[in-house]
Amino acid sequence: MRIPILKLHDLLLVSIQVVLDDKSALELQEDLLQKIHATNAEGVVLDLTSLDMIDSFIAKVLGDMVSMAELMGAKVVLTGIQPAVAITLIELGISLPHIMTALDLEKGIELLKDNGVVHP
Amino acid sequence: MRIPILKLHDLLLVSIQVVLDDKSALELQEDLLQKIHATNAEGVVLDLTSLDMIDSFIAKVLGDMVSMAELMGAKVVLTGIQPAVAITLIELGISLPHIMTALDLEKGIELLKDNGVVHP
Repeated sequence: MRIPILKLHDLLLVSIQVVLDDKSALELQEDLLQKIHATNAEGVVLDLTSLDMIDSFIAKVLGDMVSMAELMGAKVVLTGIQPAVAITLIELGISLPHIMTALDLEKGIELLKDNGVVHP
Repeated sequence: MRIPILKLHDLLLVSIQVVLDDKSALELQEDLLQKIHATNAEGVVLDLTSLDMIDSFIAKVLGDMVSMAELMGAKVVLTGIQPAVAITLIELGISLPHIMTALDLEKGIELLKDNGVVHP
Protein backbone atom coordinates (compact mmCIF):
# COMPACT_ATOMS: atom_id res chain seq x y z
CA MET A 1 0.00 0.00 0.00
CA ARG A 2 1.29 3.44 -0.89
CA ILE A 3 1.36 6.19 1.70
CA PRO A 4 -1.62 8.55 1.25
CA ILE A 5 -0.99 12.21 0.45
CA LEU A 6 -3.73 14.62 1.52
CA LYS A 7 -4.35 17.90 -0.22
CA LEU A 8 -5.56 20.74 2.01
CA HIS A 9 -5.81 24.15 0.33
CA ASP A 10 -2.29 24.90 -0.97
CA LEU A 11 -0.73 22.23 1.16
CA LEU A 12 0.02 18.55 0.92
CA LEU A 13 0.02 16.57 4.16
CA VAL A 14 1.81 13.26 4.49
CA SER A 15 1.87 11.25 7.67
CA ILE A 16 4.31 8.38 7.84
CA GLN A 17 2.96 5.90 10.37
CA VAL A 18 4.97 2.83 9.46
CA VAL A 19 8.63 1.94 9.38
CA LEU A 20 9.49 2.90 5.81
CA ASP A 21 11.14 0.22 3.74
CA ASP A 22 13.31 1.25 0.80
CA LYS A 23 10.63 0.56 -1.78
CA SER A 24 7.85 2.52 -0.08
CA ALA A 25 10.22 5.43 0.59
CA LEU A 26 11.03 5.65 -3.13
CA GLU A 27 7.34 5.29 -4.03
CA LEU A 28 6.49 8.10 -1.63
CA GLN A 29 9.17 10.27 -3.23
CA GLU A 30 7.71 9.65 -6.67
CA ASP A 31 4.07 10.08 -5.55
CA LEU A 32 4.82 13.29 -3.68
CA LEU A 33 6.58 14.92 -6.64
CA GLN A 34 3.75 13.85 -8.97
CA LYS A 35 1.18 15.26 -6.56
CA ILE A 36 3.02 18.57 -6.19
CA HIS A 37 2.97 18.82 -9.97
CA ALA A 38 -0.70 17.83 -10.25
CA THR A 39 -2.01 20.11 -7.49
CA ASN A 40 0.40 23.09 -7.71
CA ALA A 41 0.93 22.69 -3.98
CA GLU A 42 3.04 25.39 -2.42
CA GLY A 43 3.89 23.60 0.76
CA VAL A 44 4.31 20.09 2.10
CA VAL A 45 4.16 18.92 5.70
CA LEU A 46 5.81 15.57 6.17
CA ASP A 47 4.82 14.25 9.57
CA LEU A 48 7.18 11.65 11.02
CA THR A 49 5.50 11.39 14.45
CA SER A 50 4.96 7.67 14.17
CA LEU A 51 8.30 6.87 12.55
CA ASP A 52 10.41 5.39 15.32
CA MET A 53 13.41 4.19 13.34
CA ILE A 54 15.38 5.45 10.38
CA ASP A 55 18.44 4.26 8.49
CA SER A 56 20.90 6.07 6.22
CA PHE A 57 19.09 5.11 3.01
CA ILE A 58 15.71 6.38 4.18
CA ALA A 59 17.33 9.52 5.55
CA LYS A 60 18.90 10.15 2.15
CA VAL A 61 15.58 9.56 0.36
CA LEU A 62 13.83 11.99 2.73
CA GLY A 63 16.57 14.61 2.30
CA ASP A 64 16.47 14.20 -1.49
CA MET A 65 12.68 14.41 -1.46
CA VAL A 66 12.85 17.78 0.31
CA SER A 67 15.45 19.10 -2.17
CA MET A 68 13.44 17.86 -5.16
CA ALA A 69 10.19 19.35 -3.87
CA GLU A 70 11.94 22.68 -3.30
CA LEU A 71 13.35 22.59 -6.84
CA MET A 72 9.75 22.25 -8.00
CA GLY A 73 8.81 25.29 -5.92
CA ALA A 74 7.18 23.74 -2.86
CA LYS A 75 8.42 24.36 0.66
CA VAL A 76 8.71 21.31 2.91
CA VAL A 77 8.50 21.06 6.69
CA LEU A 78 9.38 17.87 8.56
CA THR A 79 7.40 17.49 11.77
CA GLY A 80 7.33 15.21 14.77
CA ILE A 81 10.85 13.82 14.50
CA GLN A 82 11.20 11.39 17.41
CA PRO A 83 14.20 11.33 19.75
CA ALA A 84 15.51 8.04 18.35
CA VAL A 85 15.24 9.35 14.79
CA ALA A 86 16.99 12.63 15.71
CA ILE A 87 19.77 10.67 17.44
CA THR A 88 20.24 8.38 14.45
CA LEU A 89 20.31 11.28 11.99
CA ILE A 90 22.97 13.18 13.91
CA GLU A 91 25.04 10.06 14.60
CA LEU A 92 24.93 9.23 10.89
CA GLY A 93 26.24 12.75 10.24
CA ILE A 94 23.02 13.79 8.50
CA SER A 95 22.06 17.19 9.82
CA LEU A 96 19.46 18.18 7.16
CA PRO A 97 20.84 21.73 7.36
CA HIS A 98 18.35 23.66 5.24
CA ILE A 99 15.25 21.74 6.22
CA MET A 100 12.49 23.39 8.23
CA THR A 101 11.26 21.30 11.13
CA ALA A 102 8.47 21.67 13.67
CA LEU A 103 7.10 19.80 16.64
CA ASP A 104 3.82 18.60 15.17
CA LEU A 105 1.50 18.89 12.18
CA GLU A 106 -0.24 22.04 13.46
CA LYS A 107 3.06 23.80 14.15
CA GLY A 108 4.34 22.71 10.73
CA ILE A 109 1.37 24.36 9.05
CA GLU A 110 1.93 27.48 11.18
CA LEU A 111 5.57 27.57 10.09
CA LEU A 112 4.56 27.44 6.42
CA LYS A 113 2.05 30.24 7.09
CA ASP A 114 4.82 32.31 8.69
CA ASN A 115 6.85 31.71 5.53
CA GLY A 116 3.99 33.00 3.44
CA VAL A 117 3.04 29.67 1.90
CA VAL A 118 -0.58 29.13 2.90
CA HIS A 119 -3.29 31.60 2.02
CA PRO A 120 -6.38 30.25 3.78
CA MET B 1 0.09 -1.33 6.26
CA ARG B 2 -2.58 0.44 8.27
CA ILE B 3 -4.21 3.57 6.97
CA PRO B 4 -2.69 6.68 8.59
CA ILE B 5 -4.91 8.96 10.67
CA LEU B 6 -3.77 12.59 10.89
CA LYS B 7 -4.62 14.81 13.84
CA LEU B 8 -5.16 18.49 13.01
CA HIS B 9 -6.40 20.65 15.88
CA ASP B 10 -9.71 19.07 17.01
CA LEU B 11 -10.01 17.02 13.84
CA LEU B 12 -8.87 13.68 12.58
CA LEU B 13 -8.26 13.36 8.85
CA VAL B 14 -8.28 10.02 7.08
CA SER B 15 -7.70 9.64 3.38
CA ILE B 16 -8.46 6.26 1.86
CA GLN B 17 -6.38 5.92 -1.28
CA VAL B 18 -6.55 2.19 -1.84
CA VAL B 19 -9.31 -0.29 -2.48
CA LEU B 20 -10.14 -1.30 1.08
CA ASP B 21 -10.08 -5.02 1.77
CA ASP B 22 -12.16 -6.37 4.64
CA LYS B 23 -9.22 -6.63 7.03
CA SER B 24 -7.92 -3.09 6.47
CA ALA B 25 -11.46 -1.68 6.76
CA LEU B 26 -11.87 -3.33 10.17
CA GLU B 27 -8.40 -2.20 11.23
CA LEU B 28 -9.25 1.36 10.21
CA GLN B 29 -12.47 1.17 12.24
CA GLU B 30 -10.52 0.04 15.31
CA ASP B 31 -7.68 2.55 14.81
CA LEU B 32 -10.06 5.45 14.28
CA LEU B 33 -12.07 4.75 17.44
CA GLN B 34 -8.85 4.37 19.45
CA LYS B 35 -7.53 7.64 18.04
CA ILE B 36 -10.77 9.50 18.81
CA HIS B 37 -10.46 8.26 22.37
CA ALA B 38 -6.76 9.12 22.62
CA THR B 39 -6.98 12.62 21.11
CA ASN B 40 -10.48 13.74 22.21
CA ALA B 41 -11.15 14.61 18.58
CA GLU B 42 -14.47 16.33 17.99
CA GLY B 43 -14.66 15.74 14.28
CA VAL B 44 -13.48 13.28 11.65
CA VAL B 45 -13.16 13.83 7.91
CA LEU B 46 -13.04 10.56 6.01
CA ASP B 47 -11.90 11.32 2.49
CA LEU B 48 -12.85 8.69 -0.08
CA THR B 49 -11.63 10.63 -3.15
CA SER B 50 -9.35 7.84 -4.29
CA LEU B 51 -11.72 4.99 -3.47
CA ASP B 52 -13.14 3.88 -6.80
CA MET B 53 -14.96 0.73 -5.73
CA ILE B 54 -16.98 -0.35 -2.73
CA ASP B 55 -18.88 -3.50 -1.76
CA SER B 56 -21.65 -4.10 0.74
CA PHE B 57 -19.30 -5.26 3.50
CA ILE B 58 -17.06 -2.18 3.26
CA ALA B 59 -20.13 0.05 3.06
CA LYS B 60 -21.44 -1.52 6.27
CA VAL B 61 -18.08 -1.09 8.01
CA LEU B 62 -17.97 2.57 6.96
CA GLY B 63 -21.55 3.17 8.09
CA ASP B 64 -20.88 1.44 11.42
CA MET B 65 -17.68 3.43 11.84
CA VAL B 66 -19.63 6.68 11.53
CA SER B 67 -22.27 5.52 14.05
CA MET B 68 -19.61 4.35 16.51
CA ALA B 69 -17.63 7.59 16.22
CA GLU B 70 -20.81 9.59 16.82
CA LEU B 71 -21.63 7.47 19.88
CA MET B 72 -18.22 8.47 21.19
CA GLY B 73 -19.05 12.13 20.56
CA ALA B 74 -17.22 12.86 17.30
CA LYS B 75 -18.98 14.12 14.18
CA VAL B 76 -17.97 12.45 10.92
CA VAL B 77 -18.07 13.81 7.39
CA LEU B 78 -17.50 11.60 4.35
CA THR B 79 -15.92 13.48 1.47
CA GLY B 80 -15.11 12.89 -2.17
CA ILE B 81 -17.48 9.99 -2.82
CA GLN B 82 -16.92 9.03 -6.47
CA PRO B 83 -19.76 8.46 -8.95
CA ALA B 84 -19.18 4.70 -9.07
CA VAL B 85 -19.20 4.49 -5.28
CA ALA B 86 -22.38 6.59 -5.03
CA ILE B 87 -24.06 4.38 -7.65
CA THR B 88 -23.06 1.19 -5.85
CA LEU B 89 -24.24 2.50 -2.48
CA ILE B 90 -27.68 3.47 -3.77
CA GLU B 91 -28.05 0.28 -5.81
CA LEU B 92 -27.18 -1.75 -2.73
CA GLY B 93 -29.93 0.15 -0.91
CA ILE B 94 -27.44 1.82 1.41
CA SER B 95 -28.36 5.48 1.62
CA LEU B 96 -26.30 6.45 4.70
CA PRO B 97 -29.22 8.67 5.78
CA HIS B 98 -27.75 10.58 8.72
CA ILE B 99 -24.25 10.93 7.39
CA MET B 100 -22.82 14.32 6.45
CA THR B 101 -21.05 14.39 3.12
CA ALA B 102 -19.07 17.00 1.23
CA LEU B 103 -17.28 17.33 -2.08
CA ASP B 104 -13.70 17.38 -0.85
CA LEU B 105 -11.50 17.59 2.22
CA GLU B 106 -11.62 21.40 2.44
CA LYS B 107 -15.41 21.46 2.17
CA GLY B 108 -15.66 18.66 4.75
CA ILE B 109 -13.68 20.74 7.23
CA GLU B 110 -15.89 23.77 6.42
CA LEU B 111 -18.99 21.66 7.09
CA LEU B 112 -17.67 20.62 10.49
CA LYS B 113 -16.88 24.28 11.23
CA ASP B 114 -20.45 25.21 10.27
CA ASN B 115 -21.61 22.56 12.72
CA GLY B 116 -19.51 24.14 15.46
CA VAL B 117 -16.96 21.37 15.66
CA VAL B 118 -13.62 23.06 14.93
CA HIS B 119 -12.37 25.96 17.00
CA PRO B 120 -9.24 27.06 15.17
